[in-house]
Amino acid sequence: MSKQIAEFKPELISIGSKKDQNKLKRFNCEVTTAEKMAAHPDIDLVVIAISGMAGLKPTLAAIRAKKHIALATKEVLVAAGSVVTAEAKKHGVRIMPIDSEPSAIWQCLQGEKRALRRLILTASGGPFRKISFDKMKRVTPEQALAHPTWNMGPKVTVDSATLMNKGFEAIELRWLFDMPIDDIDVVIHPQSIIHSMVEFVDGSVKAQLSIPDMRFPIQYAIFYPERISNDMLPHLDFLNIKSGPIENALTFEKPDITKFPCLNLAYEASRRGGTYPAVLSAADEVAVDRFLKGEIRFTDIAKIISKALDGHRGISKPSLDDILAADDWARKVAAG
Amino acid sequence: MSKQIAEFKPELISIGSKKDQNKLKRFNCEVTTAEKMAAHPDIDLVVIAISGMAGLKPTLAAIRAKKHIALATKEVLVAAGSVVTAEAKKHGVRIMPIDSEPSAIWQCLQGEKRALRRLILTASGGPFRKISFDKMKRVTPEQALAHPTWNMGPKVTVDSATLMNKGFEAIELRWLFDMPIDDIDVVIHPQSIIHSMVEFVDGSVKAQLSIPDMRFPIQYAIFYPERISNDMLPHLDFLNIKSGPIENALTFEKPDITKFPCLNLAYEASRRGGTYPAVLSAADEVAVDRFLKGEIRFTDIAKIISKALDGHRGISKPSLDDILAADDWARKVAAG
Repeated sequence: MSKQIAEFKPELISIGSKKDQNKLKRFNCEVTTAEKMAAHPDIDLVVIAISGMAGLKPTLAAIRAKKHIALATKEVLVAAGSVVTAEAKKHGVRIMPIDSEPSAIWQCLQGEKRALRRLILTASGGPFRKISFDKMKRVTPEQALAHPTWNMGPKVTVDSATLMNKGFEAIELRWLFDMPIDDIDVVIHPQSIIHSMVEFVDGSVKAQLSIPDMRFPIQYAIFYPERISNDMLPHLDFLNIKSGPIENALTFEKPDITKFPCLNLAYEASRRGGTYPAVLSAADEVAVDRFLKGEIRFTDIAKIISKALDGHRGISKPSLDDILAADDWARKVAAG
Repeated sequence: MSKQIAEFKPELISIGSKKDQNKLKRFNCEVTTAEKMAAHPDIDLVVIAISGMAGLKPTLAAIRAKKHIALATKEVLVAAGSVVTAEAKKHGVRIMPIDSEPSAIWQCLQGEKRALRRLILTASGGPFRKISFDKMKRVTPEQALAHPTWNMGPKVTVDSATLMNKGFEAIELRWLFDMPIDDIDVVIHPQSIIHSMVEFVDGSVKAQLSIPDMRFPIQYAIFYPERISNDMLPHLDFLNIKSGPIENALTFEKPDITKFPCLNLAYEASRRGGTYPAVLSAADEVAVDRFLKGEIRFTDIAKIISKALDGHRGISKPSLDDILAADDWARKVAAG
C-alpha cells in the first residue's frame, strides 16, 4: 500500500484496520472509507476488487452515486445478486465484469439480441484435476495455492482448486446476464484459452479467446466499448499452444462433480435462491481461511459449506439486511 | 430442377441451356434469365449460389436493383471484388456471405467497432492433408471429391483439396471486410468446428463455432439480424467431438504451402490486384474441370494457374469489361 501511494500519489485512500490507517498517516493523503471513495463526485468508474463480502457495501455506495462498476469481486453478486442488480437497474448503472469468464460472455453478447440457448462456462479444472479423491484429502495449502494457469490471490486460488470459484462464476453469470442457473454449463478446458462461450438459439456458438492474463478483461472493462491496442498483452498463437495435454490443441473434459462437490453446492444454492447463495459465499470464505491456517483439510471445505446450507432457514426475496444476517449466521456456523 | 419446380411451384425459373429450357416448358412457369429474376420487383433478398463466374452478372443485376445479396458464390468476389463491392456501396446493398468461414467472421464482428488486428481463417486441410506430395500426383477425381467434413459440389470440393478454396476465401474476406490480404492468416483446423476467428487490436480473439453444416450460415444470412431457433440443426457438444486426431479437442496446424501451392497463388494474385484474381479464378475453373475429366493430374491444377498468372498482363483498377476480358483470356490459356 505504501509503495502504491508513493507511486500514484492518490488524494484519497481507504484501508481496513486502524493500525494500518495510522501507519499511512505520514503520506499526504486523506484516509476515508471505501464507501465514501466509491461515491466521490470526481469519480466516473469504480473498480471493485476487494476480496470477498467486504466488496458489497462499496459496490452499493458506488451504484447509488450512479457510478459505472467494473467488478472483480464475484462474491458481491454471489451473495447479493438480486439486491445489487436491482439497484444497478434503478440507477442506470452498468456492472462490467473484470474476470476472464464473465468478460468472455459479455464480449460474445456484443451486437447480439440475446436469443440465447445456454452459456458455456470454461474451467481450467485447477491443480487437482488429475489426482485421486484420496490424495485430495491430504492436499496442503501450498499445493492448493499453485494454480496451473492463473496467478491470483489466495482465496480465489483455493476456490479454483475446489471448483467453488466456478460455481461462484455460474451464479455471477446468472445475475450479470439474467440466465437461469441450469442454462449455464461448466466444461473443463485445461488450457484456459477459451474463456467462455455463448450458444444461441440457432445452435451457433461464439467464444472469446486469449492467452490467460487478467489484464485482458481489466482493459476491456475500463475502456468499454472501445478496444485499445496494447503491446504489453501477450499474443495468442494457435500454432504455439503448449499448456495442455497435447500441443496446439484446445481440449474439453466433463467436470468430476463427485471429486469437486463445491460446484454442485453452488448450483444448488442458486436454485434455492434467496439467502442461500449468501450462506454459500460466507461459509466458503470462512472454510477457505480455516484451510489456509491448517485448521481443516482441503476436503472439509465442501463439508462445512454443505452443513451451513443444510442448516440454513432461507428467506426468499431478501433485503440487504436479510443477506447480511444470513452472511453473519453462516460465518458463525462455518467457524465450527 | 423438375423436382424442385414440382415441390416449390415457382412463378419464374432460369436455366442455362436451350435444351433444358425446352424440357421445362411442361411446367406452368415463365423461363427467364438469372439477371431478370435477381432484379424482379417482388424480390427483397437474392441468394447467389451459381457455381463459378456465372454468378457475377446476376449478382450485379440484383445489386443495381437494390436487393440485399446472400452470396454463396465466392468467385464473384474473387474475380470482381472491386466492382461488386463498389456497386453494393453505391446502391446501399448488403452483401452477406453464406459460407461458413466468412459468416463466422461476420458474426464475430457484430457489435464491434472493427479495431481489427487480423482475421484467422480456418481450413479443414482437405482430404490430402496427411499424404505425401508424391502420392498427390496420382490423386484421382474420386479421391478429390471425398471431402472429410463438408458435403459440397464438385468444383468447390476439388478447390478444398488443393486449398485454392481457402485462397478464394481469403480474397473474399479481403473484400467483404476491407482487410489487407496479408492481415488474413490461414490455420489448419481439421475438425472444422471453429469456422473462423477475429483478432482485435487488444489481442482478444473471437471465434464462431458449430457442427460443420451449411445450413448454419445459410439460415444466419437469410434471417439476419435475427437468430432463429431451428431444431433441425445439429447440436455442438464439446464432450463429444470425434472428428479430429484426438477426442474432444480442437487442433491447429500450419498449412503446408509447398504441398499446396494454390494457397500462395491466391495470396500473390490478391497482392498484385487488378485483373490478376480474375485470372486466378478463371484458370482454376478450367483446370479443375480438366482434372475432373481426367485430362490433367491433380498437381497440374496449380501449374496451370501459375502459368496463367505469369503470362497475364494485368490492368489495375479494372472495369467490369476488363475483368470479363481477363477471365476470357485466362480460360483460353488454361484450356491448354
